[in-house]
Amino acid sequence: MALMKDEVDIVIPTIRTLDFLESWRPFFQPYHLIIVQDGDPSKTIKVPEGFDYDLYNRDDINRILGPKASCISYKESACRCFGFLISKKKYIYTIDDDCFVAKDPSGKEIDAVEQHIQNLITPSTPFFFNTLYDPYREGADFVRGYPFSMRSGVPTAVSHGLWLNIPDYDAPTQLVKPRERSTRYVDAVITIPKGTLYPMCGMNLAFDRELIGPAMYFGLLGDGQPFKRYDDMLAGWLSKVVCDHLGLGVKTGLPYIWHSKASDPFVNLKKEFNGLFWQEELIPFFQSVVLPKECTTAQQCYLELAKLVKENLASIDPYFIRLADAMVTWIEAWDEFNPPKPAA
Amino acid sequence: MALMKDEVDIVIPTIRTLDFLESWRPFFQPYHLIIVQDGDPSKTIKVPEGFDYDLYNRDDINRILGPKASCISYKESACRCFGFLISKKKYIYTIDDDCFVAKDPSGKEIDAVEQHIQNLITPSTPFFFNTLYDPYREGADFVRGYPFSMRSGVPTAVSHGLWLNIPDYDAPTQLVKPRERSTRYVDAVITIPKGTLYPMCGMNLAFDRELIGPAMYFGLLGDGQPFKRYDDMLAGWLSKVVCDHLGLGVKTGLPYIWHSKASDPFVNLKKEFNGLFWQEELIPFFQSVVLPKECTTAQQCYLELAKLVKENLASIDPYFIRLADAMVTWIEAWDEFNPPKPAA
Repeated sequence: MALMKDEVDIVIPTIRTLDFLESWRPFFQPYHLIIVQDGDPSKTIKVPEGFDYDLYNRDDINRILGPKASCISYKESACRCFGFLISKKKYIYTIDDDCFVAKDPSGKEIDAVEQHIQNLITPSTPFFFNTLYDPYREGADFVRGYPFSMRSGVPTAVSHGLWLNIPDYDAPTQLVKPRERSTRYVDAVITIPKGTLYPMCGMNLAFDRELIGPAMYFGLLGDGQPFKRYDDMLAGWLSKVVCDHLGLGVKTGLPYIWHSKASDPFVNLKKEFNGLFWQEELIPFFQSVVLPKECTTAQQCYLELAKLVKENLASIDPYFIRLADAMVTWIEAWDEFNPPKPAA
Repeated sequence: MALMKDEVDIVIPTIRTLDFLESWRPFFQPYHLIIVQDGDPSKTIKVPEGFDYDLYNRDDINRILGPKASCISYKESACRCFGFLISKKKYIYTIDDDCFVAKDPSGKEIDAVEQHIQNLITPSTPFFFNTLYDPYREGADFVRGYPFSMRSGVPTAVSHGLWLNIPDYDAPTQLVKPRERSTRYVDAVITIPKGTLYPMCGMNLAFDRELIGPAMYFGLLGDGQPFKRYDDMLAGWLSKVVCDHLGLGVKTGLPYIWHSKASDPFVNLKKEFNGLFWQEELIPFFQSVVLPKECTTAQQCYLELAKLVKENLASIDPYFIRLADAMVTWIEAWDEFNPPKPAA
């Protein structure tokens, strides 16, 4: 694992003083942090001493990306994807600033980065379900009846971690169950099977930039847009479609973080309003999308998805034309900052 | 739950004295047991006092089914499906006689039947993955981004339980990892998504007879057949295909049982030999099968699958012609013993 330290960037979108980093000091200090400041760039974000970080505010984003900065959302945690774009590392771990270190049932503090990297460096099994969960974990394996030809698995592109304490509920569920807490520690990592979509939460998420970075765009949402609080969902649907097409794996489960507080359900309801309707059409659409065989890179897949979004979703709302254009701009920016590596 | 007691039969295939029932006394005594004696019918199977049971040996099976008894395997735990056929109950729980009561991490003995019934009477969610696992469990729900139109779920047909201590490994894995024990208690129930097959183990399995009984045929395996130790796998592939087609759910995870001893890996290797090869072709075949829309009952689906097995798998081995014929005989026997209920 020591070898991995310089292959990981931790990306944190924020609007406030980063006191939460104190909780993570023993776990994050060995890594480089990319802090993406959302909202008013004249505000000062305080970062505790001793961390290795770069901080980018909106002025920085505009300066660095120029006209292509239009694809980075404002006043939405979607701005985190600017950090994905400018990172030079193989792996990204992104975490919200209201998430603290969780403890496992034995009381031990959980090193979320280490578990995510473990998930990413071991293969996934999207073509057949293993009933004892991740067969690459210690003490587990493939069960009787698992085809031997499938036991090498496929490279893992995404590791989706979970949350203890405050669960990631939508506004209606928050309103109905204000006191519900997530207390069940499920000691499992699961490959989400090929062809199955899932609600990817951006709170505690890691991925392999080289494999899936271009498809980890969190969309054009937030300020001035009719679509809010669906940035991670959008990235989840599209990155899963791309992973399925390219034969890459997506895992969910461990590691847990401690999610400290629920956001205001009334504010959330106002933000989610359109998304709650639209997801009923968007999800079946992305479930049925088939990418052409000619798409062999994440970039090509993503540009094809931009085309399909424009052609098929504009009838829901003209917003989706803007989204499709922003998706194209994102790939242009990605290619500018991540030119193909010269052959060795 | 009390209301369920007379809607459940527990089916146990065996060749020996059923001492293991002592461990289950508090949990199984309220239910009716169907004991299916495999092997030599002149042997006496001792059942501990105080259980409500019927015991059927091979002579009974031949007498009750007549010529259709040919579809019930001999010297293979597949004989358990005779019990499924003659039961009059809504739910079946089937368990192997080397499985004992397991304990949860708090040390409490696990009532496997109760957990299985809980899994079966709550819906499944095969169309979209819920990252907090079974949303119908206490303390859980659908997470943000889960479409509201899908939150009613679909009826659950199958509940696949797991094993502590001896994991269900194939012979090669047993040989390579003779000391591996399953010690991780994963506190989760998961719907296996639509379109995904899994290795269904018959050791600790429950299902809704009315919904999926006709597709829970464990095949013509064992004595005189070239296919052994794949009875549950075969039933798993086919029942999942039928569930997916009919819009029914399959859950896996809790409850655990304590699996006391591994069977002999050398004997297993000899038995599994053909299956280890064949599964490489059989699984992709069943993954790609599409049933016609006209098939609207489990029986119709199963007869269609019998036809497809005969047409497509005979090239692997002529055995699959015999299997296909036995599948048809099974449905004939099912219909004889389970005539359609008269309209109320």
